[in-house]
Amino acid sequence: MQSRVEHLSTTATSGPLQRSKIKDMSAEVVDSNPYSRLMALQRMGIVNNYERIREFSVAIVGIGGVGSVASEMLTRCGIGRLLLYDYDTVELANMNRLFFRPEQAGMTKTDAAVQTLSDINPDVVLESYTLNITTVQGFETFISSLRSKSFCPSKEGCGVDLVLSCVDNYEARMVVNQACNELNQTWMESGVSEDAVSGHIQLLIPGETACFACAPPLVVASGIDERTLKREGVCAASLPTTMGIVAGLLVQNTLKYLLKFGHVSPYLGYNALKDYFPTMEMKPNPQCSNSVCLERQKEYALAKPARDAAAKAKMEAEAPSEIECLHEDNEWNISVVDDTDLQGPDVGKSSGALPEGLVHELPSADEFQKTPGSEESANLVDDLEDLKRQLEAINAD
Amino acid sequence: MQSRVEHLSTTATSGPLQRSKIKDMSAEVVDSNPYSRLMALQRMGIVNNYERIREFSVAIVGIGGVGSVASEMLTRCGIGRLLLYDYDTVELANMNRLFFRPEQAGMTKTDAAVQTLSDINPDVVLESYTLNITTVQGFETFISSLRSKSFCPSKEGCGVDLVLSCVDNYEARMVVNQACNELNQTWMESGVSEDAVSGHIQLLIPGETACFACAPPLVVASGIDERTLKREGVCAASLPTTMGIVAGLLVQNTLKYLLKFGHVSPYLGYNALKDYFPTMEMKPNPQCSNSVCLERQKEYALAKPARDAAAKAKMEAEAPSEIECLHEDNEWNISVVDDTDLQGPDVGKSSGALPEGLVHELPSADEFQKTPGSEESANLVDDLEDLKRQLEAINAD
Repeated sequence: MQSRVEHLSTTATSGPLQRSKIKDMSAEVVDSNPYSRLMALQRMGIVNNYERIREFSVAIVGIGGVGSVASEMLTRCGIGRLLLYDYDTVELANMNRLFFRPEQAGMTKTDAAVQTLSDINPDVVLESYTLNITTVQGFETFISSLRSKSFCPSKEGCGVDLVLSCVDNYEARMVVNQACNELNQTWMESGVSEDAVSGHIQLLIPGETACFACAPPLVVASGIDERTLKREGVCAASLPTTMGIVAGLLVQNTLKYLLKFGHVSPYLGYNALKDYFPTMEMKPNPQCSNSVCLERQKEYALAKPARDAAAKAKMEAEAPSEIECLHEDNEWNISVVDDTDLQGPDVGKSSGALPEGLVHELPSADEFQKTPGSEESANLVDDLEDLKRQLEAINAD
Repeated sequence: MQSRVEHLSTTATSGPLQRSKIKDMSAEVVDSNPYSRLMALQRMGIVNNYERIREFSVAIVGIGGVGSVASEMLTRCGIGRLLLYDYDTVELANMNRLFFRPEQAGMTKTDAAVQTLSDINPDVVLESYTLNITTVQGFETFISSLRSKSFCPSKEGCGVDLVLSCVDNYEARMVVNQACNELNQTWMESGVSEDAVSGHIQLLIPGETACFACAPPLVVASGIDERTLKREGVCAASLPTTMGIVAGLLVQNTLKYLLKFGHVSPYLGYNALKDYFPTMEMKPNPQCSNSVCLERQKEYALAKPARDAAAKAKMEAEAPSEIECLHEDNEWNISVVDDTDLQGPDVGKSSGALPEGLVHELPSADEFQKTPGSEESANLVDDLEDLKRQLEAINAD
């Protein structure tokens, strides 16, 4: 895999004015320095240590309208390593979104992405996986690639720092959810509606926030009659604007999460017709049908005394004069959800108490489990063996 | 100018798999149709007539981090004609933003943009103007290019449908403001802060909304101490995320404005640290120092009876059952500002009544007129002759 990536990079870098690799990020203000405007974030007091970005690995699942732009943004920001997953090929029908070029039609999206990204910034380590994560073989490769620590052997836990889900269907999201629950891996989910005028991003921390199976997916209400959307044989609409904005919000929150600045949004919606951006937090569902999620919830509850002690020590160490909490340095940069009431009645349920403009994608948790083409999923994925059986059933269709 | 553009297009289109021009936009759902996902907006009930996009001309002033992405989005959407204005060249220091590629370093931004855009969509008519609009000669070419109706001789008023300001300095914004006031041309302004973590877009309709000289510019508060930003010799920070999001919001509102769907935001801010998006409306200042703005305000007030009659006729023609006003088809797609109280005391003033998170860029109207390097601008631009004198003084520095 790696050798093919290097071959592609060499092919792509045969142009006349190719930029060479840069060993250390410099803050020097000269026209020839591609990192000067990023290192300036440090001098402006936004980021403590921008250069740390080179230590991070981010996996992007789905290199379509959102994932491709997210990969370009992270590449231009000088991320350490990108892992790219897709099985699709570039078509002219994709040209209404950013990133891919007409002459790349027919290439796999992963190959085309590696070609473009290595050209833009040869400092980024690119790993491309041309596979479908919803197949048994694909899922195994997906999991093992996320575990691999070859890029940073000293790293704790998983081999990547964040997984970005940029897929366009429910099954693939459930597979990312299963993998991240198993690996105890924080991830961000993104989506754009079929009518192209709304989208969202969501932060998922196993055990701490709702997982993707805890509650029916939330979508931003567009104000358009749903019945006009779901007609048979109608292809989904898409716009470079909506997808570029969702990719931008996703990568902005990725940068805040990795480089520990600002506030990472637990959920952020975008309604393009009204320029409305609803936010909310979702606690895990103690009745979640995903058994690994329940394990993570238990672990998170058990670690509460240690978290409280750490938070107390941190508060005492900090000057009491610090009123603004923009640079609050808590581990996840999100506002703390009180985890004592995990057993509350409304947790993770499809209650009516949603912020204005947000609706559940499907009317109820029971209904949303019956997605077309996966009758088996009425019993939600419990473990890898279960998942494998379900995937086999789905792919046999 | 046009002939050079055509030459560049030919050079750029020598690749192996170049897509050919498409005469009519088709909604056919095949992989080879670059417009299928856009035409789907019609079938989904979002847009009445997507194909009309080919009739529109948009001018983009400043092809930097925001303007280049805006030009790519409009090109991929199949806009009729784009007019591009910039005098700068591509540098490796620009590579932390989307669009330009390292091998384009040294080219003018306009040439590089035409190369990339004509490659992406040869159906778009591109006009490139490598000039500085704040010089006398540049301003004259700018005005006459906006007036030209060669693309659509039957067009009323100006030759373009919208001007997008994507410049990075106060003087250039004031020049765009002067040109649009003179031409009675609606435009949108955009900006990104020097610390790269906030931005905004604003709709300016001569006579109807505040012009750029009516009030000190509004910026989104980042929560970062301003004193750390304005230090001498510190280069501005920038991020592909913030600039991509601002470009996306700008073009999304451009599409809503041109194709008459949704609500066009009069002002939309973006605070990246908090994912906060303040909105507001700004009425024109009856004491505006720009005399052309005052003329436009008078014209707008005089046309009130005709507007009221048209609005009444429209309301009567529409079914009373139509409660949702998403597709409200008023001329500018914005909520109507009551124009009877133009003489109100707070109009266009630096009052304390700003929405949370918005601050004036400079403490007061008096102070904001004294920008560095333009001592003359204490008397704000009144007419073209005045502007010329001031520009000459500035450029003689």
